[in-house]
Amino acid sequence: MPAAKEVFIAVIGAGGVGKCFLSQLEGLSKRSSSKLSLIFVSRSKTALYSPKYTALPYDNISTALADSKQEPLSVPKIIEYLSAAPAKVVLVDNTSSQDVADAYPAFLAKGISIVTPNKKAFSGSYKLWQDIFSAASTSGAKVYHESSVGAGLPVISTLKELVDTGDEVTRIEGVFSGTMSFLFNSFAPTEGSGGKWSAEVKKAKELGYTEPDPRDDLNGLDVARKLTILARLAGLPVESPTSFPVQSLIPKELESVSSGDEFLQKLPEFDSQMEETKVAAEKEGKVVRFVGSIDVAKKEVKVGLEKFDRSHPIAALKGSDNIISFYTKRYGANPLIIQGAGAGGDVTAMGVTGDLIKVLERLS
Amino acid sequence: MPAAKEVFIAVIGAGGVGKCFLSQLEGLSKRSSSKLSLIFVSRSKTALYSPKYTALPYDNISTALADSKQEPLSVPKIIEYLSAAPAKVVLVDNTSSQDVADAYPAFLAKGISIVTPNKKAFSGSYKLWQDIFSAASTSGAKVYHESSVGAGLPVISTLKELVDTGDEVTRIEGVFSGTMSFLFNSFAPTEGSGGKWSAEVKKAKELGYTEPDPRDDLNGLDVARKLTILARLAGLPVESPTSFPVQSLIPKELESVSSGDEFLQKLPEFDSQMEETKVAAEKEGKVVRFVGSIDVAKKEVKVGLEKFDRSHPIAALKGSDNIISFYTKRYGANPLIIQGAGAGGDVTAMGVTGDLIKVLERLS
Repeated sequence: MPAAKEVFIAVIGAGGVGKCFLSQLEGLSKRSSSKLSLIFVSRSKTALYSPKYTALPYDNISTALADSKQEPLSVPKIIEYLSAAPAKVVLVDNTSSQDVADAYPAFLAKGISIVTPNKKAFSGSYKLWQDIFSAASTSGAKVYHESSVGAGLPVISTLKELVDTGDEVTRIEGVFSGTMSFLFNSFAPTEGSGGKWSAEVKKAKELGYTEPDPRDDLNGLDVARKLTILARLAGLPVESPTSFPVQSLIPKELESVSSGDEFLQKLPEFDSQMEETKVAAEKEGKVVRFVGSIDVAKKEVKVGLEKFDRSHPIAALKGSDNIISFYTKRYGANPLIIQGAGAGGDVTAMGVTGDLIKVLERLS
Repeated sequence: MPAAKEVFIAVIGAGGVGKCFLSQLEGLSKRSSSKLSLIFVSRSKTALYSPKYTALPYDNISTALADSKQEPLSVPKIIEYLSAAPAKVVLVDNTSSQDVADAYPAFLAKGISIVTPNKKAFSGSYKLWQDIFSAASTSGAKVYHESSVGAGLPVISTLKELVDTGDEVTRIEGVFSGTMSFLFNSFAPTEGSGGKWSAEVKKAKELGYTEPDPRDDLNGLDVARKLTILARLAGLPVESPTSFPVQSLIPKELESVSSGDEFLQKLPEFDSQMEETKVAAEKEGKVVRFVGSIDVAKKEVKVGLEKFDRSHPIAALKGSDNIISFYTKRYGANPLIIQGAGAGGDVTAMGVTGDLIKVLERLS
């Protein structure tokens, strides 16, 4: 057996997903056939690295990072530091930063591979999307972002394989937000009657299923970003996540209230709107769900409320699960369906770790 | 851009899956960044190849193979021929031959990578399983077999990723046979009452959903082979597909009748057995399904009839779809579920083509 190939790992972001990833990376470093040297790790306020690229110990790395006296580097400085490294580098971006995302073409052009759950790079402008894949293609660096849709669920790899093997994807449909899934499974359950809309939103926030300001979930943008990514992979040159119809569940009157708390306080005044929608669906024997869909032939992408039969897989979803259905020429009438937790630190980090393994296997 | 890397492709088997694969390979050869040279193709009675490894034209290759005057080579001769090839070789085994499967360690030891839907190699003796992966590990050749379970559905890649990223798979459960799925979705539908068991088996055979002799589906061995593969990937050293309980749906009295036709003719005499099972489930408000399950902690694998609530995803399956649920530590109470067509030439070939792409990306 030849000596293990050394690969340098640089990690930006040590929040919920970042901490889980660092823990998974420690496990992977013990099993991998490559020698994985963590040479850089940073969060918003601190960083850990050495000018000589000395490998950092994995043990208690999150605590060591929090206690570090080193300041984080600017993105250009990180590129400079990693470009001069004496081995191949994989950058793991566990932030949701647009700044870092905007620099992906620069990282990739320098031969630095990227794995990330950050949706911003792949759902921003179409030009950034093109620049990213063109830089990767030219330099041979790899870029994977499985966790940008459906967390660790094999959504992006499956769609890519359908396309790469020559299948024709005709339609993609599903529930792409754990928050929306939880809200509607409680608000309009298939059996029994759910609670009031505002009460369900409040409960979801208390359980940690929403962003600090729930409007960041209810505006539909998160789902629109995921649809943008899938539509582009299916071959549609979608310009941005705001270039197709996205239904916001924020009442117009509450769009500009100053805080999430004020929003939650005033939301009960608007419960009748959502109640009407629910009752209208019930009269047809259906339930309402917040879904995204892509009609590839018609080049239509949309995000919003739709009604489903109670026996439909989308209606029957549980907890905060995601479900994604791929309708293709080969699969015919019954779609290829992937379902399961689409949010959470551990499953999101798992998608990132899986991507890292794919890059390691492909680095020659 | 450097010149495209040339990779030699050798294909054994040109039946239902084989023909679909050859058609997908032709498409892939036009899109791949590697130069894919088809240097060998064979079926039971004929072959096409040249001593100088001249690339065969993809156009009408199935017809050319059928019309060929060249006789197929023995497995040792194929190994000899491919080992001397002046480029890296990927063998695509589209047969269900135990002989070819038994030779995988020899192919792999010579650096020949393998992609295949053939279940025999991975569900035969545990020694063969060990020999295959040990030969691959030593030589660096790759071996992928996504289509050996669930055809093109991402079942094996998902299970591998769960394991490789450090998740703990606790239980795997599902419907693993398109034939059994079709039979039970018709025999014991969630709404309405199904037909008689023997009539459903006859209909399934007429529609091409069963093997020529339906007993080859009803004995449960096909499902047992798939469970053997998944259990081994989950870490259980299952000795063989007959080393755990497998329920056969062939009445004892019909095990030894001479033909599939005679079997079908006599099956109505035994309808009461299956009818009793169905009625017993109905009394509990349930439906009966033929499933496989793996309890990793208890090291238990079993295949047979089980009862499910009508709202359970396994009960709600349609047509001849497969469904596979992975229960893991990270995914918690709600499993990661993959569902869709688990049989058919095009979707099976798609899994093989997807595996070939993975090998091409990893060949350095």
